[in-house]
Amino acid sequence: MAKEKKLVEDITSMDVDFAQWYTDVVKKAELIDYTSVKGCMAIKPAGYAIWENIQKELDRRFKETGVENVYLPIFIPESLLQKEKDHVEGFAPEVAWVTHGGTEELQERLCVRPTSETLFCDFYANDIHSYRDLPKVYNQWCSVVRWEKTTRPFLRSREFLWQEGHTAHATAEEAEARTVQMLNLYADFCEEVLAIPVIKGQKTDKEKFAGAESTYTIESLMHDGKALQSGTSHNFGDGFARAFNIQYTDKDNQLKYVHQTSWGMTTRMIGAIIMVHGDDSGLVLPPRIAPVQTVIIPIAQHKEGVLEKAYELRDRLAGRFQVKVDDSEKSPGWKFAEQEIKGVPTRIEIGPKDMEAGQAVIVRRDTREKIPVALDELETKLSEVLETMQKDMLERARRHRDEHTYDAVTYEEFVETINTKPGFVRAMWCGDQACEDKIKEDTTATSRCMPFEQHKLSDKCVCCGRPARKLVYWGKAY
Amino acid sequence: MAKEKKLVEDITSMDVDFAQWYTDVVKKAELIDYTSVKGCMAIKPAGYAIWENIQKELDRRFKETGVENVYLPIFIPESLLQKEKDHVEGFAPEVAWVTHGGTEELQERLCVRPTSETLFCDFYANDIHSYRDLPKVYNQWCSVVRWEKTTRPFLRSREFLWQEGHTAHATAEEAEARTVQMLNLYADFCEEVLAIPVIKGQKTDKEKFAGAESTYTIESLMHDGKALQSGTSHNFGDGFARAFNIQYTDKDNQLKYVHQTSWGMTTRMIGAIIMVHGDDSGLVLPPRIAPVQTVIIPIAQHKEGVLEKAYELRDRLAGRFQVKVDDSEKSPGWKFAEQEIKGVPTRIEIGPKDMEAGQAVIVRRDTREKIPVALDELETKLSEVLETMQKDMLERARRHRDEHTYDAVTYEEFVETINTKPGFVRAMWCGDQACEDKIKEDTTATSRCMPFEQHKLSDKCVCCGRPARKLVYWGKAY
Repeated sequence: MAKEKKLVEDITSMDVDFAQWYTDVVKKAELIDYTSVKGCMAIKPAGYAIWENIQKELDRRFKETGVENVYLPIFIPESLLQKEKDHVEGFAPEVAWVTHGGTEELQERLCVRPTSETLFCDFYANDIHSYRDLPKVYNQWCSVVRWEKTTRPFLRSREFLWQEGHTAHATAEEAEARTVQMLNLYADFCEEVLAIPVIKGQKTDKEKFAGAESTYTIESLMHDGKALQSGTSHNFGDGFARAFNIQYTDKDNQLKYVHQTSWGMTTRMIGAIIMVHGDDSGLVLPPRIAPVQTVIIPIAQHKEGVLEKAYELRDRLAGRFQVKVDDSEKSPGWKFAEQEIKGVPTRIEIGPKDMEAGQAVIVRRDTREKIPVALDELETKLSEVLETMQKDMLERARRHRDEHTYDAVTYEEFVETINTKPGFVRAMWCGDQACEDKIKEDTTATSRCMPFEQHKLSDKCVCCGRPARKLVYWGKAY
Repeated sequence: MAKEKKLVEDITSMDVDFAQWYTDVVKKAELIDYTSVKGCMAIKPAGYAIWENIQKELDRRFKETGVENVYLPIFIPESLLQKEKDHVEGFAPEVAWVTHGGTEELQERLCVRPTSETLFCDFYANDIHSYRDLPKVYNQWCSVVRWEKTTRPFLRSREFLWQEGHTAHATAEEAEARTVQMLNLYADFCEEVLAIPVIKGQKTDKEKFAGAESTYTIESLMHDGKALQSGTSHNFGDGFARAFNIQYTDKDNQLKYVHQTSWGMTTRMIGAIIMVHGDDSGLVLPPRIAPVQTVIIPIAQHKEGVLEKAYELRDRLAGRFQVKVDDSEKSPGWKFAEQEIKGVPTRIEIGPKDMEAGQAVIVRRDTREKIPVALDELETKLSEVLETMQKDMLERARRHRDEHTYDAVTYEEFVETINTKPGFVRAMWCGDQACEDKIKEDTTATSRCMPFEQHKLSDKCVCCGRPARKLVYWGKAY
């Protein structure tokens, strides 16, 4: 057993050092490797398979709403990036600049896209002429580069993978509806597939996207009580359209500016899965996103018929579940530990005694519950266990989130709570950025969002005491 | 009818100017747009949907052979690129260099990956320790950048999309087997899915990949008689392993170098589809790769029940085929022309007379054959028509290729043929690069490959007359 223990002992306990626990899980579950390229990670097969499942599911949901995929260039000429004032101010300080092609110096620098609003605007300016060309509801799957100073796997890296949707509409109303529609799509995806409950709301002006009229966000809470911005959807109004001159001839023969939106979700969601569901034994993957949903582990596999039975069960399950047999020479205990580190939702133990009894044992990764199952009911039971586990994981995360959401009315209360109780703090806000600045200065916390579901805790701003305008979720964030 | 004619007349005839015909088709079929980023294209929904189908089908075939997807960084530090001598010589002159991150100058330049051998080597050097870690059979889907001087949509652009597989093996034999396996996979994919027949063979030393021990290639022939390199698979032996020190401890406890391969296919295959199958009316998509396989076009759609019938047929077909109804206000003739330009394999015409007769008319894009079909046999018949069309397209392309493949024994014959008859010329070669150089100098043609299926046309090199060692396919190429 010495070796089995070793495998798990390498993971720091999350209560001892959450940041180290996270790094250990990321490495031991073989999700990434560090590379010689500072701030960039290599996503390994176990990590990339999660991203492929995220892509498949999001892409399907996008296409149901009429999204079409495209691909625009990786580079943005400096003059193009500079066309929208707020946008360039937000992004120019953190882009990578290409100055040479081959042996020649470029006449104009190109940045590696940090986000593609300017490219889509340039594209739409050519492509949109008439109301008949609208709406455009395009998306691309790609990587983007932002020159971050401090990086962490999945959460903040100089290059990350994402999708970025960019749409153009005839009216402000339609753009607003699409912005909200995509935020809701992200929220549903997080809850239904990743088992991560989210708070939907609007960013304050201070926290909104560079160039946006309004930014909507979904915010989730990690196990350590820190918030994670998990997906954003921006309404640009006609600001970019004016900067890039994207006009169409309407039915009334008038030239009008389009209204635009953009929305994105990234590989950081893999970080969210780890930090919402993981435990001291490693990763715990929600069944609906897990690349492998069950590993069959033969017990005493040298005994006659055991391996054959394991393969037989695999072949039976294969059409309906993502299933593997671990037939390696390792001990069952070692295999259990490996399956737990990698977060495989269930394992199926099958040994000589089980075979005699015509049963197998399903073990849940999250609760460790052992569920003996008659072999002829295996498909039904496994399906039930996976569904229950998916539901339980969401409920557990929601309970954790709710138990770590606090209300504060006075500033003293607010500071005390946010500094001693990891989690969200709800408090009223006057709408003045000065109060956000003061709160950040005093506590390092930021406004996460003004939730769509508003209620009143008091009439006064928690910070300055002036009349309150909005309930805000505050938190320390990744 | 004036407008319908206009739509088609905008396409230059391929016999008049093939290059212009290609550009017209690419634009009119709405596959791409040019961008403000010189040498980079925007792939529009109709183009990207073809790429998505290529990805889906290739990815499925890869995974059946044990390939796992990963993602490695977009940047390569200059020192890493320089580690393998031949490789850096081949690629350094054509890379884009990042010299600044944000406002700071980088201590070491980074190039945007032109291909990722060096990154995978760096990764494998960390990841491979024991024979138990082998083989590694990894692949990534991404974009790469090569600073080309002259560019053409899909065929040659500064950024293109591709997959790049990179594998590491314990033995030379296993690496060689994987190199050939992937070449065969590409060949089968081209023939079975894209309906493009290929010649499988080996590149000469002059034409092989920078750093490879041997490069295998599939070569296809475009409608204008020019060759297109359509997929390559490289065996690196242990050259990169020695440069990057990728060693493993074998079962016999000895430290050994791994043997590596890489293989790639790109968005240029969309160019191949256009140039192999297209005609003067536009694109012709093979049914197995077409994002839309049939468009239902209602005739006299204002007449009672016609549109309803069209929708009913769409709903019937939707589970089994990629189907759309064109219910726009345009005339049927206009819709026919649009469907032809976009290369949709079939259309289904349904009007009041058809409805009375309980039939519809399937029209094939490639032959324009009109096939009346009883409505209750529509699924079966459409399926047959699409299958027949797929088969016919491959046969037609094969016939065209064979009819444009010539043999030459004397140099006079060779030069005469290659300069006057567009196509492949087969001729014997002594193995000396000087002859390849002379042929290129005299004719602009290059050696496309030494086909796996060799036969002897004569004992002498077509160029120098010395003893011949190989039959070679020569051609002018994209």
